Amino acid sequence: MAYRETEKMRQRKAEARQRIIDCTWECVAEGGFRSARITRIAGLAGVATGTIYRHFESREHLFAEIFRLATQREVDKVAEALGISGNAVERLESALRQFAGRALKGPMKAWALIAEPVDPTVEEERLAYRKAYADLFERAINEGIKEGCIPEQNARLASTCLVGAISESLIGPLSPTQTRSLQDTDNRNNTLVDAIVCFCIQGLTGTRS
Amino acid sequence: MAYRETEKMRQRKAEARQRIIDCTWECVAEGGFRSARITRIAGLAGVATGTIYRHFESREHLFAEIFRLATQREVDKVAEALGISGNAVERLESALRQFAGRALKGPMKAWALIAEPVDPTVEEERLAYRKAYADLFERAINEGIKEGCIPEQNARLASTCLVGAISESLIGPLSPTQTRSLQDTDNRNNTLVDAIVCFCIQGLTGTRS
Repeated sequence: MAYRETEKMRQRKAEARQRIIDCTWECVAEGGFRSARITRIAGLAGVATGTIYRHFESREHLFAEIFRLATQREVDKVAEALGISGNAVERLESALRQFAGRALKGPMKAWALIAEPVDPTVEEERLAYRKAYADLFERAINEGIKEGCIPEQNARLASTCLVGAISESLIGPLSPTQTRSLQDTDNRNNTLVDAIVCFCIQGLTGTRS
Repeated sequence: MAYRETEKMRQRKAEARQRIIDCTWECVAEGGFRSARITRIAGLAGVATGTIYRHFESREHLFAEIFRLATQREVDKVAEALGISGNAVERLESALRQFAGRALKGPMKAWALIAEPVDPTVEEERLAYRKAYADLFERAINEGIKEGCIPEQNARLASTCLVGAISESLIGPLSPTQTRSLQDTDNRNNTLVDAIVCFCIQGLTGTRS
């Protein structure tokens, strides 16, 4: 009996933790990390603010966890896009389109993950995740060099150029201070993604696309 | 007499402020913002820690000021490099070489300015300064499009790709966790700069360099 109680408590704790995570992400998706205040998260999750600190050492630790979970989803999507059939250039193009397209469809989320000034704990995670993207690109670039569709080059360096070019070029368009009209958004986004992909593939292959 | 006293005090205050700035930058150049602790800065500058807070609202404000001063120097160097004679592609190449070369020559300083996780106040400055670099590049790209040495494209977007590619590709090589041997540094740095510039110019022009 004592054992089953403990199990139930454990489950309840896990559920509360998940609810805190979901509600934090809800806040971040709506207004960035800035708008994810602990009192607001507690209100949404239906827990006391003290409960949040029983699950997460600090606001920074909670944010770092949210950042990891959300960014890993994006890394997985890029890995998935790299897994299509085709040569390495086609696969890299599909991955870049996936990354930029998803970002522009959820601009506030993407802004929070890519550029919003948060705190050093989240910045550390950002550095680590940019490496994760670069690792994926590097593998594809090396495959492309072997296949012959990408010229011989320092694949590591080129992969970081891709990560930098695609994230930096999205920061302006994603910025919450940018005014967006719903009408021209789709067109504008497609043109933008084309231009980013064009720069990246040209940088890699030296061939006008 | 009273007036001259006030002048003297003002001058002394200005000197103390400058000394605090110089000593903070000395710490940052040696071990990044992380190593610039207020007690250490106060010790180096020969002032009480309280004096620092009379000049700067907080550690964050002091860091933001240091960041602005140091980054403005780099922006000026890039502007200078863009001012050489030659067509826009040559001038952009010289600016990219200037930026990367200076960064690799002072890796700890550059790491602190480009990538070190600091705090949101400095991160806000970083976003602003990346725009300043992009503004310079954008002007040169537009000139290149007019001159005909750069193909028609969205110059704003391409300028942010340049900023992203060059900073992101430097983060790994600049990272303090990277082990460096003094011997191979110069060679390695030249190869690195060549590869970064090659990616950037190809991205811009679509021509193998």
